[in-house]
Amino acid sequence: MGVGDVSKRILLGRKLRSAQLGETLLPKRIALPIFASDALSSVAYAPDEVFIMLGLAGASAYVYSWKIGIAVAVVMIAVIASYRQTVHAYPSGGGDYEVATVNLGKAAGTTVASALLADYILTVAVSISSAAQYASAAIAPLQGHEALFGSAMVVLLASMNLRGIRESGGFFAVPTYAFMLAILGMCAFGFVQLAMGTLPEVESAHLTIEAAPGYEQPLTTIGLMFLLARAFSSGCAALTGVEAISNGVPAFQRPKSKNAATTLFLLGLIAISMILSVIVLARQMGLRYVDPNDHERLLINGAPVGDDYEQHAVIAQIARAVFTDFSPGFYFVITVTGIILVLAANTAFNGFPVLGSILAKDGYAPRALGSRGDRLAYSNGILFLAVMAIILIVAFDAETTKLIQLYVVGVFVSFNLSQLGMIRHWTRHLAAERDPGERRRMQRSRAINAIGLSFTAVVLVVVLVTKFLAGAWITIIAMFLFFALMRGIKGHYDKVALELEVDAGDNVMPTRVHAIVLVSKVHKPTLRALAFAKASRPNVLEAVYVATDAKDTNRLVDDWERRNLGVPLKLLHSPYRELVNPIVAYATEIRRANPRGVVAVYIPEYVVGRWWEQLLHNQTALRLKGRLLFTPGVMVTSVPYQLRSSQIAVEREERDTFRVRAGDLRRGQVDERPSPRSRGRRK
Amino acid sequence: MGVGDVSKRILLGRKLRSAQLGETLLPKRIALPIFASDALSSVAYAPDEVFIMLGLAGASAYVYSWKIGIAVAVVMIAVIASYRQTVHAYPSGGGDYEVATVNLGKAAGTTVASALLADYILTVAVSISSAAQYASAAIAPLQGHEALFGSAMVVLLASMNLRGIRESGGFFAVPTYAFMLAILGMCAFGFVQLAMGTLPEVESAHLTIEAAPGYEQPLTTIGLMFLLARAFSSGCAALTGVEAISNGVPAFQRPKSKNAATTLFLLGLIAISMILSVIVLARQMGLRYVDPNDHERLLINGAPVGDDYEQHAVIAQIARAVFTDFSPGFYFVITVTGIILVLAANTAFNGFPVLGSILAKDGYAPRALGSRGDRLAYSNGILFLAVMAIILIVAFDAETTKLIQLYVVGVFVSFNLSQLGMIRHWTRHLAAERDPGERRRMQRSRAINAIGLSFTAVVLVVVLVTKFLAGAWITIIAMFLFFALMRGIKGHYDKVALELEVDAGDNVMPTRVHAIVLVSKVHKPTLRALAFAKASRPNVLEAVYVATDAKDTNRLVDDWERRNLGVPLKLLHSPYRELVNPIVAYATEIRRANPRGVVAVYIPEYVVGRWWEQLLHNQTALRLKGRLLFTPGVMVTSVPYQLRSSQIAVEREERDTFRVRAGDLRRGQVDERPSPRSRGRRK
Repeated sequence: MGVGDVSKRILLGRKLRSAQLGETLLPKRIALPIFASDALSSVAYAPDEVFIMLGLAGASAYVYSWKIGIAVAVVMIAVIASYRQTVHAYPSGGGDYEVATVNLGKAAGTTVASALLADYILTVAVSISSAAQYASAAIAPLQGHEALFGSAMVVLLASMNLRGIRESGGFFAVPTYAFMLAILGMCAFGFVQLAMGTLPEVESAHLTIEAAPGYEQPLTTIGLMFLLARAFSSGCAALTGVEAISNGVPAFQRPKSKNAATTLFLLGLIAISMILSVIVLARQMGLRYVDPNDHERLLINGAPVGDDYEQHAVIAQIARAVFTDFSPGFYFVITVTGIILVLAANTAFNGFPVLGSILAKDGYAPRALGSRGDRLAYSNGILFLAVMAIILIVAFDAETTKLIQLYVVGVFVSFNLSQLGMIRHWTRHLAAERDPGERRRMQRSRAINAIGLSFTAVVLVVVLVTKFLAGAWITIIAMFLFFALMRGIKGHYDKVALELEVDAGDNVMPTRVHAIVLVSKVHKPTLRALAFAKASRPNVLEAVYVATDAKDTNRLVDDWERRNLGVPLKLLHSPYRELVNPIVAYATEIRRANPRGVVAVYIPEYVVGRWWEQLLHNQTALRLKGRLLFTPGVMVTSVPYQLRSSQIAVEREERDTFRVRAGDLRRGQVDERPSPRSRGRRK
Repeated sequence: MGVGDVSKRILLGRKLRSAQLGETLLPKRIALPIFASDALSSVAYAPDEVFIMLGLAGASAYVYSWKIGIAVAVVMIAVIASYRQTVHAYPSGGGDYEVATVNLGKAAGTTVASALLADYILTVAVSISSAAQYASAAIAPLQGHEALFGSAMVVLLASMNLRGIRESGGFFAVPTYAFMLAILGMCAFGFVQLAMGTLPEVESAHLTIEAAPGYEQPLTTIGLMFLLARAFSSGCAALTGVEAISNGVPAFQRPKSKNAATTLFLLGLIAISMILSVIVLARQMGLRYVDPNDHERLLINGAPVGDDYEQHAVIAQIARAVFTDFSPGFYFVITVTGIILVLAANTAFNGFPVLGSILAKDGYAPRALGSRGDRLAYSNGILFLAVMAIILIVAFDAETTKLIQLYVVGVFVSFNLSQLGMIRHWTRHLAAERDPGERRRMQRSRAINAIGLSFTAVVLVVVLVTKFLAGAWITIIAMFLFFALMRGIKGHYDKVALELEVDAGDNVMPTRVHAIVLVSKVHKPTLRALAFAKASRPNVLEAVYVATDAKDTNRLVDDWERRNLGVPLKLLHSPYRELVNPIVAYATEIRRANPRGVVAVYIPEYVVGRWWEQLLHNQTALRLKGRLLFTPGVMVTSVPYQLRSSQIAVEREERDTFRVRAGDLRRGQVDERPSPRSRGRRK
């Protein structure tokens, strides 16, 4: 059966579409800031980590800093070139997860998903910790309370995302472009001063760094290699977030893949310029930078600087020196850096629901995550992310240097599997492709991915060797746990699917329908339920009342007889005011008497709109429905009667439906939405 | 229509009864401890409060202590005589609330209920605070942490009651009889020593009490009156809990009222003996007792005792002196006193759900409280009680003396309205009664209740005058809030009932039934839902699938055609993976096309048993059902398919049904219950 047949059946497609979310595809100039904030924000901490690592051997090792920068840039070029292949080959937005699953199998796909999950948590933790450090550089009272301030920011971000931020292009574009302007402008200004010979020194230039134990000069070749490897692997934090665009291809304007590839190129260009500029400038300005826990290695005139010394982040030191005579410039750089870091953390809150829905579709996550409408599942995901990030921030006291040891490993696991998958992809397609031009292009793409893989594989090994004991083991354990959880969920769904599979006996029709209408009073909902039950013409129809009190029972029976409703009333005796059990027992009874029939239980319900009204009503109906679901051979029909106040709930629900959810923008699901009011109320 | 007609209809009564809770009526020897712990436990703190108040004017005012005791005893006799009339006239267990509602109207009834609610909270707070003080007398490390320890005990009690304690007669009988034995035994031993002239002095006998400012000797007559009034109103704390039996008449063995009246008589006898004995003995043994915050008024050789002085409770001081040579006696008295206080607090946890269910029946509390089976409502009630009690304990630092200022006022409001109601009751009955013997009995009862009223009215005035500023205003505000809340709930239920009232147009039958069966896959639940839907022969029957993904849709359509199910399949297009809105919109659409018809939505559901499985399934069905309830003209039918694991949930539910709930025992609803296992599993 072809697609044509299917589309003929979609009768309501157009009509319903207007009630759906609107769709706005992103031009490149908006897509770049939306997807770039994560990748670019690492400029705020990656250079610092490079200098910290090199500084273990004293400031003289800073001579390697630009080489490290170049190495990171080369890896970034290779990775970006590789992802440009991916966005062409997999324009559906599944990203690394899809590439790995399709080409390497489900285990690889689940591994990538675990890596990404761990990474989202760390993106929040690292970005917010770094942002807290910038904030405390600008606002003195925050010093020493970074973990608390960071946790508060995570709580704020989470609640904004739970509430639904109206994301728009400008929300991302303004701060991201401001950040680019700030960093590149500052560096350009610095280079001009350098060229003119007026480049000032940073505040830490007069200090000296004592080598850490084990790193005293002269270093052995192996010692030096290890030092450089550590600095390089920390610098590779700059690569996190590069993969974001490959998950967002469907949100781009047409031609989607081409525009995504161009945006990737621009992202790479800007990121590399930024990080190299910062590293070179910092070195030229005489930066001295150590792990904040190693202040005793930072000497002034041969003596430790002491505990009062406040070491400011690299960008902050450069900005302060470059803009000596222009303090607004300094505050601008600090402020936009802080904002871009928060935006990067927000990226994770956006990406998490998107990943969740993809996993849910394949049965690796609770199915509720797959539906945009499931507010509960969605909220729980955001809360989970926030709680995990806060645990990390508090446990590591918001120290970026420590958290960075856990970072990167997840990203590179995902890079590697993705590149390997792409190589397989091209090899498979090459086997089928005959056109020489096409073949040439595929071979070129495969070569690019192979180069990408060789680079990322080396980086992964370097990262594992240099960071495993320092913290990466935590990430790896977390990945294993996520992996096991996903496999467990998948296993459960598969087991259920097997149990639900249709077999021979499933087309049997029930021989008769015995309908019972539950009665608590003779009121509108009861009469409506009776009418509806009659309309479905069951073989037997009776009304059932649970008698808990003689006086009430007499009143009801009188009422019933007087109204002459034409349906017999049966009383179930319940001396202890229990309602649910007598009904369940009676339904079981009927079914036992006629095992091939079905019992239809009609429950009259009236619905109210305010939350406190809902507390006062419907509890019993809910409990009863819950119990009857577990009673074989029973079907449960709710016949609702809408009270006037129920309109409130309908309106609340509509507002909620059209509320923006985190991640909508990067799925291309936002903006031109019809306002709920303008569509007229349902009658 | 008579009762005979009703009983003929109760076909399933007998059969279902075996599945209900068993019923065991209480003999007097078990009923006494069950209902007496609250009233008797006040012996642990009421005498202390009398001595504290008298001591304001120095130890010389202790000369009035036995007169205060007598006054309290007289009031207690009057109250008990009055309640003996109530248990005969209102054997249904509604207690003061029923008496006030029937005879004085709903506002009076609600006032009584508010008073009782406030009183339950204070019973927990006062009893646990007193228990914490006894515990810290026996266990030194607890000193100074009474509020924390008390709060922990409340949490423990609440969680025991949430979990369901298997209450049995012994659970109450052993500690209550032990307490009677301990106190009366100790006093008897003391009186023997007194007769033999060997009565020792208590530990505080060598101290002197300085009069508080404003109470210096010689007191003016008014000053003395006020002092005695304060002491008396604190002593009246001994009367709280006396009304418990009038709520428990249905749990007594037959003749219920007579046995209840006898038990009341015994309770009064024991309570009066205890309190008088303790007061007299304490005075004979030279007790010196002040407010724990007034230690500077307690002098040793003319100088204050200082902060290290540990003032032990009156019973503890007597026990230590009487059992000087037999310390196990001392520890026995302290231990059973502590236990009886905890038991008294537990009384409130028992009474609260019972009161809640009575209020719910009349529409003054959420209706869910009226059903024994509603675990959620029940748990929330217990949590509310615990939280309020903890707030009081912490706010008043577990000081009984302060909390007692809030106590008593609620009880006496309820006593007064109840007595007034009883007088009205007899007057009304006298108007109809002709038999002279019966009339004489009624007149006698009315006289007793009138005497009771005059006593309790005086006490209420005394309590209000002496305690209003000291704390009773808090209780009165709380009562107003409870009152307003109950009236609000009642008003809401009345408004809804009015809106639901049947009018002329309500017997209209829908003209046609348009049934749609929601399909997500072709599996057993879907086929069952189709079969059930077919069996109810709707005018139109179609299957509906929400198409979110082209591949899945093609697969389903293929499957559908191949199986030749004889029901047309309609596809609803949903590009953003939304499931609920397209279905709601389609149902609304159908209904709009045919406003006098009804849309029957059949939802195939499979049910699983483990809690984590439930997280993975059914979320969408639940949400959809919730939404469709608010869509007019729609009825929602759940067609469940029970997976194997669903049996787990059935068994859990059965265990829960037969779990004991707090308050069951005093409603006569416990013990000979069939074990859930022995009744065979449902098929």
